[in-house]
Amino acid sequence: MAAEIAKLGHTALVTPNMEKSLWFFRDVIGLEEVDHQGDTVFLRAWGDWEHHTLSLTPGSEARVDHMAWRAKQASDVDLFAEQLKAQGTPIQWIEPGEEKGQGRAIRFRLPNGYPFEIYYDIEKPKAPEDKKSRLKNNVYRPSNGIAPRRIDHVNVWTSNPGEVHQWLSDNMGFKMRESVRLSNGFVAGGWMSVTPLVHDIGVMLDPKGQSSRLHHLAYYMDNVTDILRAADILREYNIPLEMGGPGRHGISQAFFLYVKDPGSGHRLELFSGGYLIFDPDWEPIEWSEQELDSGLIWYGPQGSMEDTTPC
Amino acid sequence: MAAEIAKLGHTALVTPNMEKSLWFFRDVIGLEEVDHQGDTVFLRAWGDWEHHTLSLTPGSEARVDHMAWRAKQASDVDLFAEQLKAQGTPIQWIEPGEEKGQGRAIRFRLPNGYPFEIYYDIEKPKAPEDKKSRLKNNVYRPSNGIAPRRIDHVNVWTSNPGEVHQWLSDNMGFKMRESVRLSNGFVAGGWMSVTPLVHDIGVMLDPKGQSSRLHHLAYYMDNVTDILRAADILREYNIPLEMGGPGRHGISQAFFLYVKDPGSGHRLELFSGGYLIFDPDWEPIEWSEQELDSGLIWYGPQGSMEDTTPC
Amino acid sequence: MAAEIAKLGHTALVTPNMEKSLWFFRDVIGLEEVDHQGDTVFLRAWGDWEHHTLSLTPGSEARVDHMAWRAKQASDVDLFAEQLKAQGTPIQWIEPGEEKGQGRAIRFRLPNGYPFEIYYDIEKPKAPEDKKSRLKNNVYRPSNGIAPRRIDHVNVWTSNPGEVHQWLSDNMGFKMRESVRLSNGFVAGGWMSVTPLVHDIGVMLDPKGQSSRLHHLAYYMDNVTDILRAADILREYNIPLEMGGPGRHGISQAFFLYVKDPGSGHRLELFSGGYLIFDPDWEPIEWSEQELDSGLIWYGPQGSMEDTTPC
Amino acid sequence: MAAEIAKLGHTALVTPNMEKSLWFFRDVIGLEEVDHQGDTVFLRAWGDWEHHTLSLTPGSEARVDHMAWRAKQASDVDLFAEQLKAQGTPIQWIEPGEEKGQGRAIRFRLPNGYPFEIYYDIEKPKAPEDKKSRLKNNVYRPSNGIAPRRIDHVNVWTSNPGEVHQWLSDNMGFKMRESVRLSNGFVAGGWMSVTPLVHDIGVMLDPKGQSSRLHHLAYYMDNVTDILRAADILREYNIPLEMGGPGRHGISQAFFLYVKDPGSGHRLELFSGGYLIFDPDWEPIEWSEQELDSGLIWYGPQGSMEDTTPC
Repeated sequence: MAAEIAKLGHTALVTPNMEKSLWFFRDVIGLEEVDHQGDTVFLRAWGDWEHHTLSLTPGSEARVDHMAWRAKQASDVDLFAEQLKAQGTPIQWIEPGEEKGQGRAIRFRLPNGYPFEIYYDIEKPKAPEDKKSRLKNNVYRPSNGIAPRRIDHVNVWTSNPGEVHQWLSDNMGFKMRESVRLSNGFVAGGWMSVTPLVHDIGVMLDPKGQSSRLHHLAYYMDNVTDILRAADILREYNIPLEMGGPGRHGISQAFFLYVKDPGSGHRLELFSGGYLIFDPDWEPIEWSEQELDSGLIWYGPQGSMEDTTPC
Repeated sequence: MAAEIAKLGHTALVTPNMEKSLWFFRDVIGLEEVDHQGDTVFLRAWGDWEHHTLSLTPGSEARVDHMAWRAKQASDVDLFAEQLKAQGTPIQWIEPGEEKGQGRAIRFRLPNGYPFEIYYDIEKPKAPEDKKSRLKNNVYRPSNGIAPRRIDHVNVWTSNPGEVHQWLSDNMGFKMRESVRLSNGFVAGGWMSVTPLVHDIGVMLDPKGQSSRLHHLAYYMDNVTDILRAADILREYNIPLEMGGPGRHGISQAFFLYVKDPGSGHRLELFSGGYLIFDPDWEPIEWSEQELDSGLIWYGPQGSMEDTTPC
Repeated sequence: MAAEIAKLGHTALVTPNMEKSLWFFRDVIGLEEVDHQGDTVFLRAWGDWEHHTLSLTPGSEARVDHMAWRAKQASDVDLFAEQLKAQGTPIQWIEPGEEKGQGRAIRFRLPNGYPFEIYYDIEKPKAPEDKKSRLKNNVYRPSNGIAPRRIDHVNVWTSNPGEVHQWLSDNMGFKMRESVRLSNGFVAGGWMSVTPLVHDIGVMLDPKGQSSRLHHLAYYMDNVTDILRAADILREYNIPLEMGGPGRHGISQAFFLYVKDPGSGHRLELFSGGYLIFDPDWEPIEWSEQELDSGLIWYGPQGSMEDTTPC
Repeated sequence: MAAEIAKLGHTALVTPNMEKSLWFFRDVIGLEEVDHQGDTVFLRAWGDWEHHTLSLTPGSEARVDHMAWRAKQASDVDLFAEQLKAQGTPIQWIEPGEEKGQGRAIRFRLPNGYPFEIYYDIEKPKAPEDKKSRLKNNVYRPSNGIAPRRIDHVNVWTSNPGEVHQWLSDNMGFKMRESVRLSNGFVAGGWMSVTPLVHDIGVMLDPKGQSSRLHHLAYYMDNVTDILRAADILREYNIPLEMGGPGRHGISQAFFLYVKDPGSGHRLELFSGGYLIFDPDWEPIEWSEQELDSGLIWYGPQGSMEDTTPC
């Protein structure tokens, strides 16, 4: 039986301006600072149960250290290790605690270069008493800044999305939910998931043709009005909104707001709405090039985003 | 390998006042009328892909004919049939088309009496051209009445919830997500799911001690403001709101509105928010009797609901 | 004592495609059809008390027939007539019923050409029984299409806004609330009101240098989510959203959505939020050219609107 | 010409637990602390322009020191003083600065005992640089707690509301907007305003028959979702919500949430929606006793509020 992925775990970002990135993610976005290890700071949203869903580490230049996926069972980590080795992908073992709060894990790169991690064991620390939610089924009291609820997905750029989609399907069990096919037959983007979310990962064509860049990481908010409040807060801080402001994608039906961490240039999406796929026989929705006008932006800002995010 | 349930499919309701029930579910709530078969009318929400998520059939008195669950694979229907027979539960085979749009299925009763159905094959008809959404990943244009997005869950009453929870866990793979334990140790309610939803089914203690009653069926709306708009619409139609209006549960964190179909007395919940559980090792949240004040109603109307719903 | 204006009354539009304009304003936007007179159809929003807040009349080309203002007292109509004549503005008397539902009124043109009407007597018909709100303080049950609550303001283009502002202040008592001054000292726009609304009328520089064009008429919606729902509905009807979608102005703090009537090209704004001015000594907020980036669009689509609206 | 009131200015509350009241209004509700004078602290909402819209003063027991109204012109303060004296109401002069930020003012009691103040001159201090909004037409960046936009209205209890309504109409120019008449002909409540708000003041029958008590003071929020967010925040602080939570009144159409300052017992309403009255010939909406079910609570919690607020 094949090893299975349960969910997106976290993204580990490297930033050349730690102070500014910490200010952005913790004080403006309102992620909670959970823990640290050396120079690395671990954060999570108020409704995240795991030890961290984001880590920030200072470094000479911005990059993604890894994007981490939680396996469905403890034994799946070993199983993935075997499968990947068999398939020719070199893996690196991460010992328990090497990444704080996390058990034994593997790291490896996809053929195109994305740095992935798979783990199962992870601590689920409670919130400190003064920040704890009075709701038993919640972690923190949402009290700080923009305050998204939880990590949602990652979105990455590459030079040949179709190949990456195939790899993710073959080796990690991701199912295609929606995709874009250009008139020349080339697959320019795909939104894939192992959960009922429309996407745990989006893999899209890099306009600069690079093989492996982060487009954005995304956190979820309960209501579209939370996104509008976020826009107001960001504008008050004079942090530019990508494309000018929020809107709704056709693809995924998400209500979105994009903003870049001013410390690192990494892009964050605040995301609400979307739809869930429970059908075991879901037929991927394929958008043609002609349909992209409503597919990309159902309503909202029409400009393209600057493609200056780091790898 | 055990047979698996993928999702809630539909509820089949019997109503003594077909005209009024149809007016309520189709014209007020805004479900789309998809098809009919004899006296039975099939409906679904604008974002439901399956042939129907609700059926209404005229009958001498209100009752639930069945609550239907979609299996994860075609072969799971047979597998469930075998397992249930082995376990001593009589099953009844439903032939393809016997319920319109649906393939071969089994019906059976839980030990306490809930009428369940398991199917896999189901038609996914497109919306008629004049009602079709311009979004490729959507079914209907939301154009009618209150217009919830999709079916969400069912909630049922019984005399010994703990036994039913165990049965659902052992025989259908439902996982406990949240539960209520009284001071005397008795489990008074449990919210269980096979999906990341907090509950696909809730099973609660019947205040009248009956073994098998529907508490409510629920449809999902994207935003809390959609629920408030629903409250306004229902009040304009002079349809009573249960408990007086919307509020937020602690358990499940759902923003809710309850209303009874004036034709049958069956209760409908309009539901927004809530949270998703992606953790494979989720530890059920147990609410004590003392914690129920914020568990049942985090904020909103405090009265209890009339327990006059049909079986 | 000077005659006073109480409020904006209605706009009377001429359309070359009556059928399409009626479909747009009545069926899509959801204004209620109240009455007709010859070819003219009278409409109002569900929360408008007066006989009409919009009239549509077929004509060879799109134009504004008049923008009507309600005087504070019956005697103010005569007083305005005298004042305007004394000031050199020719006026035309409109007899009671000449415009259905309306009493005696005057029509005149501002020096730059805007066609204005001042009236006091107006019928306030009830909604028909089947459309009547169950709320005593409301007119219609909001049941139809996008369903804005009430008329809000008009916004017009001219070649020298400063002169028009002065005229409106001197002759009709409008107070400047916010304005834009270019680096060369030229006043490029002003938002004025007789009520606590930030503006009952906006007067802005016409990019084409014409003396008298309608930029838009605006209806009010209670919540920003109503505007987002409107965007979804318009997109489903494949009616283009101006600039691509909703956003928030800095000036007036309004959450906006612009759309053109496909029958006439007249532009409609759906408007929520904004702020109210109760201070009798309000000091106008003046935005410099450098401040316009956040003044025009606080967040949202950044493109400019096509300047193709009719006079 | 009669003196005129422009708007509600502020309420001056006395609290037996200054620390707790300050925590509630400043840290939980999120009013901004502007200034102090002796033991008195002055607060205002982020969108309030005047020096203060609330003051808190420690005292042996909770009471309203005064409710202040801003006159339309500077000369109106003297004019009101003359009119009130002529009418037999004793007035007390307050010297400039006696109440910090405020000019010369008069204080007096209504025949039933309400302590009123009328002033015109008031400072409009800017927000400190680090709290200042980047919007020129706003005061503070909304950054703190629940964060309502501005003061809205006061609501008071008395033993004979009809008499008070008459007094307010005769002596201060308040117009009746909505009222409640019991079956025995007694006027049980009236909502009156000098602005287009449905009410600047509500005067209702005291269930305990006292002559002069504050029912609540109210602050305005832009969206219903802001009120729901407020409910979540208050619940996290374990501060009881009056009646259990938010709802919508029929009268005024307001979406409401009531909560008591745990330091003083004074009640606060967070208020959104409602409607505006621009008609100079508005006919008051009168609700009969039979109509009160939808008049008081259109939807929401049905319980009555405890009548334990201080005078």
